[in-house]
Amino acid sequence: MTPSTRAGDAELARQLFDAVREASFDGIGVTRESYGEGESRAMALIEAQAIAAGLQCARDAGDNLLVRLAHEPPGRPILIGSHLDSVPQGGNYDGLAGVVAGLLVLMRQQRRDDPLRQPVRLLALRGEESAWYGKAYMGSLALLGGLGAAELDLRHRAGGRTLREAMLACGVPVDRVAAGEPLMDPSQIAAYLELHIEQGPAMVARQWPVAAVTGIRGNIRHNRVVCRGEAGHSGAVPRWLRRDAVLAVAQLLANLDEQWRVLQQMGMDLVMTCGVFTTDPRSHAVSVIPGEVAFSFEVRSQSPDTLEQFYRLMRQECEDISRARAVGFEFDNRLYSAPAIMDPAWVERFSRACRAAEVDSEPIASGAGHDAAVFANAGVPCGMLFIRNDHGSHNPREAMELDDFLLGVDVLEQAIVDAQRPG
Amino acid sequence: MTPSTRAGDAELARQLFDAVREASFDGIGVTRESYGEGESRAMALIEAQAIAAGLQCARDAGDNLLVRLAHEPPGRPILIGSHLDSVPQGGNYDGLAGVVAGLLVLMRQQRRDDPLRQPVRLLALRGEESAWYGKAYMGSLALLGGLGAAELDLRHRAGGRTLREAMLACGVPVDRVAAGEPLMDPSQIAAYLELHIEQGPAMVARQWPVAAVTGIRGNIRHNRVVCRGEAGHSGAVPRWLRRDAVLAVAQLLANLDEQWRVLQQMGMDLVMTCGVFTTDPRSHAVSVIPGEVAFSFEVRSQSPDTLEQFYRLMRQECEDISRARAVGFEFDNRLYSAPAIMDPAWVERFSRACRAAEVDSEPIASGAGHDAAVFANAGVPCGMLFIRNDHGSHNPREAMELDDFLLGVDVLEQAIVDAQRPG
Repeated sequence: MTPSTRAGDAELARQLFDAVREASFDGIGVTRESYGEGESRAMALIEAQAIAAGLQCARDAGDNLLVRLAHEPPGRPILIGSHLDSVPQGGNYDGLAGVVAGLLVLMRQQRRDDPLRQPVRLLALRGEESAWYGKAYMGSLALLGGLGAAELDLRHRAGGRTLREAMLACGVPVDRVAAGEPLMDPSQIAAYLELHIEQGPAMVARQWPVAAVTGIRGNIRHNRVVCRGEAGHSGAVPRWLRRDAVLAVAQLLANLDEQWRVLQQMGMDLVMTCGVFTTDPRSHAVSVIPGEVAFSFEVRSQSPDTLEQFYRLMRQECEDISRARAVGFEFDNRLYSAPAIMDPAWVERFSRACRAAEVDSEPIASGAGHDAAVFANAGVPCGMLFIRNDHGSHNPREAMELDDFLLGVDVLEQAIVDAQRPG
Repeated sequence: MTPSTRAGDAELARQLFDAVREASFDGIGVTRESYGEGESRAMALIEAQAIAAGLQCARDAGDNLLVRLAHEPPGRPILIGSHLDSVPQGGNYDGLAGVVAGLLVLMRQQRRDDPLRQPVRLLALRGEESAWYGKAYMGSLALLGGLGAAELDLRHRAGGRTLREAMLACGVPVDRVAAGEPLMDPSQIAAYLELHIEQGPAMVARQWPVAAVTGIRGNIRHNRVVCRGEAGHSGAVPRWLRRDAVLAVAQLLANLDEQWRVLQQMGMDLVMTCGVFTTDPRSHAVSVIPGEVAFSFEVRSQSPDTLEQFYRLMRQECEDISRARAVGFEFDNRLYSAPAIMDPAWVERFSRACRAAEVDSEPIASGAGHDAAVFANAGVPCGMLFIRNDHGSHNPREAMELDDFLLGVDVLEQAIVDAQRPG
C-alpha cells in the first residue's frame, strides 16, 4: 500500500463518517432506526460511494446492501459485514465503522494488480439494534431463517407499527421470514468477517488499537428473581427470628462475587451482573426489616459449560441461603443466549496481521453481541476485529480514532490476503 | 385477689377493649388519629369507665387523661401510662392495653383494705404514633418540654392541618410547647410504668407471656446513603475495570452482617437493618452494570457505646470498600435517637413479681420506642412490662391473649405493692 492510498483512505473514511452522521443527526447523537429512515439514508450514502468507486451494488432478499467488485473470481464469497442502524441518540461508529471498513477493503481490491482468488463482498446489514423492537440481530436472523412469526409481531418502542410492517415496507418477504425460511444459504459463504468498535473499556485501558476477537459471550439471565423473607419491626425482631431479604441477597451476591473472582483466576471467561436490585417501593421503609427483594441475574461467558457451571453454583447458593435464613427464591423464566466462537483460523490470521502491522494486542472476548454471532451459530466461519473506542457505545460520546480504524482496515485486508495462500 | 375479682377484671377488660375497638373501627383495623377523633373517642370511653368506678378524672395541660383514686395519699405519684392513639388501620391493643391495665390497677386499689402509701395514677396519653405527623411521642414530649416549634409545623400525612393546629384544637397551650416549656415537672413523678404488647416475635417464640423490659433501644440512622460506581455494558466491561455499586453495597452488608453476628455472640445488644436498597429505576437494566445504589442504614442498641462502635465500623467498611472497588459513598444527615435505660429497681421488681406469679421469662430489650423512653430520658425512673403478642404491631392482625394481659396486670400491681415496702 502506498502512502498516497493511505491518505486517500483516511480522507474518504472521514467524509463518509461525516456524511452519514449528518444524515442521521438528531440534535444529540445519531438516530438510524432499524428498517427506518436514518438506516435507509446511511445505506443510500454507502451505496452511492460504492457506485462512484466502480463497485457493483445490489440489495439482498432482506433489503440489505451487498457490494461486490465489478469483476470477481468464482467461488464462495468472504462477506465483510456490519450494521447500519443505531440506537436512538446513539454513536456514529457502532456498526457503521465495519461497513466503511468493508467498503475500503473492496476499493483497495479494485486497485490491486494481484486480484484475490476468492470473492470478497460487503454486506451492510439492517436491523441489528434491539432498541427499536426489543429484538437484536433482526437483519442477520431474517437472512438465516432465525426470526419467527412471534418476533415479527413485536411492536416499535413508541407503539405504532410492528416489525413485520417495518420489514414489509422495505420489501422483505415477511411470510418467508415468518416461516423460518432462510433467505441465504450459509453453506455458500466462505466466511463472515466483522470489524466493530469495542463497546467496553479494556482496549483503552490496555492501549490496544486493534484486537482479534476470540468469541462472543453468551449469557444466562433471569430478568426477575424474588427473594421472600418476612417484613418486621426493625427494632423489635431479634437476629435469630429475622428473615431479612436484603441481607439474604447481599450474601448471595457477595458469595457469587468471590466465586467469580476465583473462577476467573483459574482462567475461566466469566462476568456476572446484578443490574437491578430493589426492595418493594410500596412497602419498604428505613425501620422495616425488608421482607422482599426483586433482583436480576446475568452471567456471560464464551463457554456454554462455564455458563451452566456458574448458573448451577448460583442456584446452589440460593438453596443454601434459603435454608440458613428461612427465605425463599422465586425465579422467572431462565433466558439463554448461546455463545459464539470465532473461527480459530481467522483469530490466528487477525493475530498474525496485527503482529505484522506492529500492533501490540492480544485476542479478547466480545461481551456485547454482534451479527457475527448469528452467522457463527449458523455454521459460517467467522472472524471479528475490535477497534479501540472510549466511553463505550450506544451514546454520542463514543470515541474511535481514525488512525486506529485505518490500522484495523489494514489488519482486515491483510488477513483476507493471508487466507488466499494455499494450505 | 379473689377469683371473682379476676373474672370481673377479665369481663371489664374485654368490654373496654371491644368498646374502644368498635368506636374506632375503620373497616379493616382501628384508626385513632393523634389529637384526632378516634383517640378522643377512646379517651371518653376510658374516662366514662373510670368515673363509673368511682375514680377521679381530669385532663392535664397536654389534654391527656389523668385518673386517680378518690382518696389518695400525699406524695409523688407513680404514673401508669400508655397511649390511646393508633396508626391508620392499626391494632387495638398497641397502647390501649397499657391504659386499660392502669385502670384495672386503680380499680383494684379502690377496693383494697390496705391502701398504698403513695399515689398511683393512670396517664392515658395522646399522640404517640409517628404515622400521623412524622413525629413520635408528641404527647409525652410536649409534657416534658421536648417538642419544638419546628415540630409543631409538621403537617398531617394527608396534607391539611399542622400538628400545632391539631394540638390547639384539643386545648393544648401550643405557645408554651413551642417555647420548650415543660407542662409537668418530672422531678415530681416517683415513677412512670408502662405495660405494652411486644411488637416483635421473641416472646411468642420463647413462650413468655409477660416479661420485664431492660431498656428501649436507641438508634443511629441514615435514611439515604448513595453508593456511586460507574454504569457500563454488562458484557463488555471486564471484572478489573468494573465499579459495580450493587456488588459494593452487597459486600458492605455481608461484612456488617458477619460483624453483627460476632458482636452479638460477644454479648452486645445490637440489631442492624437495611430496609431500603434500590438501583436507580430510571436507568437500571438487566444488562447494565449498576452505577448507583441508594440504601438506608439503621443500627439499634440499648447501649450508646455499641451504637457508636457499630456506626464507626460501618463507616470504616465503606472506606475500605471505596478503595478496593473504586466507588464512593455519600451520606445524608446522621440521625440519632438516644437509648433509654429502665430503672434497675423496677426491672428487679417486675422480675420478682413475674417469678411470684410463676411466669417463666427473662428481661428483654424493647426494640420499638415508647413514651417510657421520653420519661426515662427526662430523669424519671421508669419500668416497662411487655405482654406476649403475635404478628407484630401496627396491623389489625396483632394478637394478645386476655390471659396474658391479666397476668401482666397482676405483675404490674404486685411490683407497685412491692415498691411500698421500706428499703
